[in-house]
Amino acid sequence: MEPPITLRRDGGAPLYRQLTEQLRTAILDGRLPAGARLPSTRDLACSLGLSRGVVVEAYDELAAEGYLDGKTGAGTYVAAGLPRPRPRPDPATGPAPARPRWLRPEVPARQPGPHPEPGLIEFRPGRPTVAPLPATVWRRVWRAVGGEAPPGDYGPPAGEPRLRAAIARSLGQSRGLRCGPEDVVVTTGAVQALALVARASLGPAIPVAIEEPGALPVRAILAEHGAAIIPIPVDADGLVVERLPVGESAPVLVHVTPSHQYPLGGRLPVARRLALLEWARIHDALIVEDDYDSEFRFGAAPLPALAGLDGGATRVAYVGTFSKVLTPALRTGYLVAPPPLRERVVALKPLADFHSPWPVQRALATFLEEGHLERHVRRMRRHYAANRAALLAALAPVASLARPLGLEAGLHLCLEFGPGLDAARVAAAALAEGVVVATLADNYFGPPARDGLVLGYGGLSLAEIERGGAILARAIGREARRGADPARPPVRRPQVA
Amino acid sequence: MEPPITLRRDGGAPLYRQLTEQLRTAILDGRLPAGARLPSTRDLACSLGLSRGVVVEAYDELAAEGYLDGKTGAGTYVAAGLPRPRPRPDPATGPAPARPRWLRPEVPARQPGPHPEPGLIEFRPGRPTVAPLPATVWRRVWRAVGGEAPPGDYGPPAGEPRLRAAIARSLGQSRGLRCGPEDVVVTTGAVQALALVARASLGPAIPVAIEEPGALPVRAILAEHGAAIIPIPVDADGLVVERLPVGESAPVLVHVTPSHQYPLGGRLPVARRLALLEWARIHDALIVEDDYDSEFRFGAAPLPALAGLDGGATRVAYVGTFSKVLTPALRTGYLVAPPPLRERVVALKPLADFHSPWPVQRALATFLEEGHLERHVRRMRRHYAANRAALLAALAPVASLARPLGLEAGLHLCLEFGPGLDAARVAAAALAEGVVVATLADNYFGPPARDGLVLGYGGLSLAEIERGGAILARAIGREARRGADPARPPVRRPQVA
Repeated sequence: MEPPITLRRDGGAPLYRQLTEQLRTAILDGRLPAGARLPSTRDLACSLGLSRGVVVEAYDELAAEGYLDGKTGAGTYVAAGLPRPRPRPDPATGPAPARPRWLRPEVPARQPGPHPEPGLIEFRPGRPTVAPLPATVWRRVWRAVGGEAPPGDYGPPAGEPRLRAAIARSLGQSRGLRCGPEDVVVTTGAVQALALVARASLGPAIPVAIEEPGALPVRAILAEHGAAIIPIPVDADGLVVERLPVGESAPVLVHVTPSHQYPLGGRLPVARRLALLEWARIHDALIVEDDYDSEFRFGAAPLPALAGLDGGATRVAYVGTFSKVLTPALRTGYLVAPPPLRERVVALKPLADFHSPWPVQRALATFLEEGHLERHVRRMRRHYAANRAALLAALAPVASLARPLGLEAGLHLCLEFGPGLDAARVAAAALAEGVVVATLADNYFGPPARDGLVLGYGGLSLAEIERGGAILARAIGREARRGADPARPPVRRPQVA
Repeated sequence: MEPPITLRRDGGAPLYRQLTEQLRTAILDGRLPAGARLPSTRDLACSLGLSRGVVVEAYDELAAEGYLDGKTGAGTYVAAGLPRPRPRPDPATGPAPARPRWLRPEVPARQPGPHPEPGLIEFRPGRPTVAPLPATVWRRVWRAVGGEAPPGDYGPPAGEPRLRAAIARSLGQSRGLRCGPEDVVVTTGAVQALALVARASLGPAIPVAIEEPGALPVRAILAEHGAAIIPIPVDADGLVVERLPVGESAPVLVHVTPSHQYPLGGRLPVARRLALLEWARIHDALIVEDDYDSEFRFGAAPLPALAGLDGGATRVAYVGTFSKVLTPALRTGYLVAPPPLRERVVALKPLADFHSPWPVQRALATFLEEGHLERHVRRMRRHYAANRAALLAALAPVASLARPLGLEAGLHLCLEFGPGLDAARVAAAALAEGVVVATLADNYFGPPARDGLVLGYGGLSLAEIERGGAILARAIGREARRGADPARPPVRRPQVA
């Protein structure tokens, strides 16, 4: 049987590899069927114009792989017992495949939206600016990584000791948390910290309280781990603690953002903090304190972390991240949790990603140890205060229509609309002029109780904020006039350039 | 009411901070009860020897935090409505706490063993050597990271486009996989790739087939995601495909290590690969191909990846990692999966850690693009071949008692013991002389069908291998003689130095 071989001699793949691959393909697709006898190495070499050694090598490799059988002098045959793979279905014309048995039937988790077109001004919450970080500092921390011999082994699941110590010191200084390195677990972002806590605590239909409105990823992560979500109202002071269910129906876990509630921006007063701790004590519940945006306060006094008020350190899981103070691209966060939870999280971390990548932990340890984080936070506080002031100035003309909330901290503010002003329409009108804003309604689990917009100003330049804020203010003004005069034509549909 | 304040003036914390903290603590622990009137700022400043401004600042901060109420001229009072936290229980004398309601009742996942004492020679599988990597190359890839402006935003959940493209090219060249950048998902280690696949595919009591014996972390991850584990026997050629359950009882997912079965070391022949694909097609099952150790072959021909043989690319999830070829400290792996699974994994990744850290992806992209990975694999192939030869030479005197398996690839070999030789006793005897080895029995889900040891030689120097191998060979010889003569005393208990 003459194998179907066409060799290219134009300097592409070596002839030996071309021959081996073409023989293998011919066997797999059935052109060389099981039991077929191949030409002798001498004959094939002759017919293809190859040295015999090349053919011998190809036959040997295919025999070692199990494609060919052959005894010396008895000829070489295509091996029997190779099942034939099915022909590849044509994706263009074949029937749409049903859901495979090996995909979970649930709807997949919601994906974050695609990054918008360049040129748009995007008031996206949770996005910082990194540019004011000196390039020399950034180079320096990575030079430290490159200058150290790479570890050839797995590291500790709870994180590198140096980084854990630096985080513990920093939390003691900036948040008044009394914790040591052993209390800190380094995670691959705050997202993983919450996912690991959920993994350690939750199961199917376990009741969990979240803030309403609240952050979408929090809800998605908790739901993905089986939580039965109980939305608890939020007011201008954050979570309305007295609305937490009591007795038999008390949730097992409550997730709060006390430093700067997302999205309304309230700061949980001390009385509510203590009431929340007392509620958790009575009901044996876990508080997950997402200390989101705690670093950036504007003229407001620091409020003590729940984890610091929890005297016995027995029921608060404190979650922090470097995403806002530095950049989300590092994907590094941390968890300070009561010992039984921490042990469980450290046992689960190896099943998630074993540990967080060493180079990033090493770089961050240098960054903290050398005081760069503190300096960067100070620098960025001024930067964001200027951003905030610019946005407020741009929105001042419509302040009577759209009331800013949550100004004391963080990288976003909330614009609450009065009646007659439709946030979805304002967002559409702004998008038509190249400005992306999110509506408050998007952050509700149930029916929205307030209407308005959530404006992140962390990731924009002053010029973008001024231009985008002016466009937004005009859109609000127009929409308010339209709302007041139903005879006016509706806003035109958004068109992204 | 005179507050209990003791200020230290020895250059510790600022007086303002000391005062604020001591007042706050006194309010929280009830020494200053709700409604108590505080001294005027003038009186307290006078009694403590402070400037009045310091006391005003402290009162203002505590009022802003909600601890104090006060109107100008009407005095300052401890706020009402602050619930009292319980006294902190004394951990030394208090009763042992019951399991909190917010911890899952299941036994926590098994933790990896602690790192052994320095000075021990540890034949731990899965551990590479990194030292032969030139320091200039390591410095170079991190300099590239430090030289680039840090991104101020989240990256794509599936990974950085440059790294995905470099991985796709590398898989095409080294494993014959025809895939593009869009087929690759970058994960935080192979562990996360498997965890995400499990998350996308499994639920409570879903039947899953694993190799028996097999890798412990694989079993732990699958079980953690609810799998009902079905162990399938392995022989010298890897998974015995014909033992997979068929019909109604066919598992939904099967996990295999075809390049170098862990721990026995077999390489799945092409006929079995094709039979496995056919079984998966008939039963609509997913194959997870953990291409563990595929990079390091010793004189053996490459075998085609299952993912490459799967013509329609419809039922193999291919998992790879940089842990063995470079270092586990990077925590970077990847997944190439059929489109519906890949989409689900990309939707779940934001709920796990959003994306893998940018700096490591960026550094690895440089490493691959500049050809350093290929060079390092070639370098390490020689290095590990020398390690393997040294270990085999050291064990040659006992080859009749302990047969080496799995020599064709990878960073470990398996020593299969004949009857009368007890692996646990040999391991204990070796540990007593400072050599750490794992037994084959540890890798079984059910009752062990073979006895022996699993010896990783990737992370040791030649000198350590020679010394450790000689100690091990003597322990095997002694134990065999003892086994042959029941009157001899038992081996002494291990003592770690």
